[in-house]
Amino acid sequence: MAHAVSPLAPAHFPPMPPIEGVAFATAEAGIRYRNRTDVLLVTLAEGTQAAGVFTRSKCPSAAVDWSRRVLQGGKARGLVVNSGNANAFTGMRGAKAVQLTADIAAKALGCDPSEIVLASTGVIGEPLDATKFEGVLADCASRASAAAWDAPARAIMTTDTFPKGATATAEIAGVMVTINGIAKGAGMIAPDMATMLSFVFTDAPIGAPALKAMLAAGADASFNAITIDSDTSTSDTLVLFATGAAAARGCPRIADPADPRLASFRAALNGLLLDLAHQVVKDGEGARHFVAVTVEGAVDDASAKRIARSIADSPLVKTAIAGEDANWGRVVMAVGKAGEPADRDRLAIWFGPHRVAVEGSRDLAYDEGTVSAYMKSQAIDVKVDIGLGNGRATVWTCDLTKEYVEINGDYRS
Amino acid sequence: MAHAVSPLAPAHFPPMPPIEGVAFATAEAGIRYRNRTDVLLVTLAEGTQAAGVFTRSKCPSAAVDWSRRVLQGGKARGLVVNSGNANAFTGMRGAKAVQLTADIAAKALGCDPSEIVLASTGVIGEPLDATKFEGVLADCASRASAAAWDAPARAIMTTDTFPKGATATAEIAGVMVTINGIAKGAGMIAPDMATMLSFVFTDAPIGAPALKAMLAAGADASFNAITIDSDTSTSDTLVLFATGAAAARGCPRIADPADPRLASFRAALNGLLLDLAHQVVKDGEGARHFVAVTVEGAVDDASAKRIARSIADSPLVKTAIAGEDANWGRVVMAVGKAGEPADRDRLAIWFGPHRVAVEGSRDLAYDEGTVSAYMKSQAIDVKVDIGLGNGRATVWTCDLTKEYVEINGDYRS
Repeated sequence: MAHAVSPLAPAHFPPMPPIEGVAFATAEAGIRYRNRTDVLLVTLAEGTQAAGVFTRSKCPSAAVDWSRRVLQGGKARGLVVNSGNANAFTGMRGAKAVQLTADIAAKALGCDPSEIVLASTGVIGEPLDATKFEGVLADCASRASAAAWDAPARAIMTTDTFPKGATATAEIAGVMVTINGIAKGAGMIAPDMATMLSFVFTDAPIGAPALKAMLAAGADASFNAITIDSDTSTSDTLVLFATGAAAARGCPRIADPADPRLASFRAALNGLLLDLAHQVVKDGEGARHFVAVTVEGAVDDASAKRIARSIADSPLVKTAIAGEDANWGRVVMAVGKAGEPADRDRLAIWFGPHRVAVEGSRDLAYDEGTVSAYMKSQAIDVKVDIGLGNGRATVWTCDLTKEYVEINGDYRS
Repeated sequence: MAHAVSPLAPAHFPPMPPIEGVAFATAEAGIRYRNRTDVLLVTLAEGTQAAGVFTRSKCPSAAVDWSRRVLQGGKARGLVVNSGNANAFTGMRGAKAVQLTADIAAKALGCDPSEIVLASTGVIGEPLDATKFEGVLADCASRASAAAWDAPARAIMTTDTFPKGATATAEIAGVMVTINGIAKGAGMIAPDMATMLSFVFTDAPIGAPALKAMLAAGADASFNAITIDSDTSTSDTLVLFATGAAAARGCPRIADPADPRLASFRAALNGLLLDLAHQVVKDGEGARHFVAVTVEGAVDDASAKRIARSIADSPLVKTAIAGEDANWGRVVMAVGKAGEPADRDRLAIWFGPHRVAVEGSRDLAYDEGTVSAYMKSQAIDVKVDIGLGNGRATVWTCDLTKEYVEINGDYRS
């Protein structure tokens, strides 16, 4: 099951400072594997506000159903994440398992079960035995600290080949605040394992309505603008927790998303979400190239994003990039199949700085050798100008390699 | 470029009788390759009616633009197909090339250029030198006969590993008529080559409006219900030609698609289109398994088809089938991402006759060993009951193998 670390992985896990009001511990609950941390408990200071963004799947996991409900209240005191079992498509037993997990966590933290956010990732369709959390979560609560952030980042991994973390600082009315995030990928549902999960923590005293608005906008330009294989997990979860501890240092409490004092925070959050989303792509199963697809000149931004996604999801574009082949004919094909307004005779296409097609034809000026050399780069930029309007969007993806098929075609049993 | 014949190929090309009013010849025009037939001319008797269905791509090829216009008139006297160059994304030069091709063919056949249907398949973005047809088409016209149908089936191949043909008979008001069809696939855009093409011929005296209605309905349940890799060519073309020669044997002329005397013809046509469509799937690039995905119990047929397509297009489902893995969790995922009404707790899933999930959970009665043995079959049936209504649809696809990536990741140059 263990695969070599992705060649696109960052050199090291970033140093991440503590976040006041956040502590955590990991443990081996034996959910599916032996000798592997598979559960994360995060404790959150009283008064922590929270907001989430979840999978659009019509068949969400029991944990997604639960956390959606919890976050309607905008408050959280604890987060429990397990890897090894997604608790998805598990019927009534799944619903009972999340209730029991929240009960055990609430008892360990001395709060109400309705303040416990849950996330699960792993095999679909197998019952999750939540009694395994008995004792384990209480022990985690007693050991919780704000030490090394690579531990929680590792505990939520399934087929990920490296732990993913990012940190940023921002200022609100002159007070510095910190944002830390962790994430896991990697190929939606690896040999039976599932899901994109990301958890972001800040000490800023921001209310749930503002968190929700900023998170939704930030996710649209980051986690909702990446694609590994076009498949959508039943369990995708992104939650932003704000402990509010910076209020003690004079940071004002803000709940209105339109408050101009949030500008620096919003920018820092967006950057951090994008960083984490890019790390997920760079750990795409079998990925050898990191690809940014930018579409300009579409009739509007939404149209640009749909065209960019059509290109980024195309198996033929992705296999061409795996073959380091500047096959712009396949880009034309993917523009055409997107179903969005496009005029063949206005299209222009670039690989990196090299324009290969213009006004509905091959660019006679481009040099095949130069472009072929560019296609050997680890990071590939594909740009398309639709030539109709001012709509613009970027979607990130990776190439489709034989290793992807190998990883996902392994026998499950 | 040559790949071994697909293991899913039929044992042999079917014996196909002549169709009165249809003659053909093939030639080597040297469009892209040497020593390979790459052009097909079909001559059609005066009075031939015709109708077509084309790609939904917003960036169609010059030949598609041309043939759409020609078929608005409902009449055709000739068909020219070339392989090796798709004449797509070739701008004004592409439009000039189709005009010149039609002029040359019309001169050879003694008809008007507006009665020549054109189709091209091959590389995208390279200018097509139509002067190469000069002399070649006149020579084809002089040699045209109704002999072996595998010759035209082979002339239109690009990366196909076997020629595709089918024949059927039907009766109209007691008169027997014949339908012959040929097709090519195979992976939408193989190393640079493109497109699904299919041409169907009959001696039945059916008018263009009825041809159009029957072809559109038949295509929906066949060529529009298959997917190799979810990619849509710029050049997909399906044309039905009716010479009307059977009128001399007393067959009535029918133009109204609602005429009940068309029942037998419609059924035979539908069967022939489905046969050809299945052959295209069986020649999908790298295909090792032929997969039928049936969705029942959706809110309506259109919803069922969207869910079936979501399953059939899912790289994770397709790689699981390549791995002969009964991974129904990925089927749940694909149902969930379709965006159609679905209730996790009502879903049931079968692989062949084996129910593996029911009422939102693993079917506790299913035997992993039995289902694993079934997954080694060459033809795999996946059935999902959504449990909400009476909507039903089947979509056919193939598995996603390392060979697909290999074929499509080859260097273009």
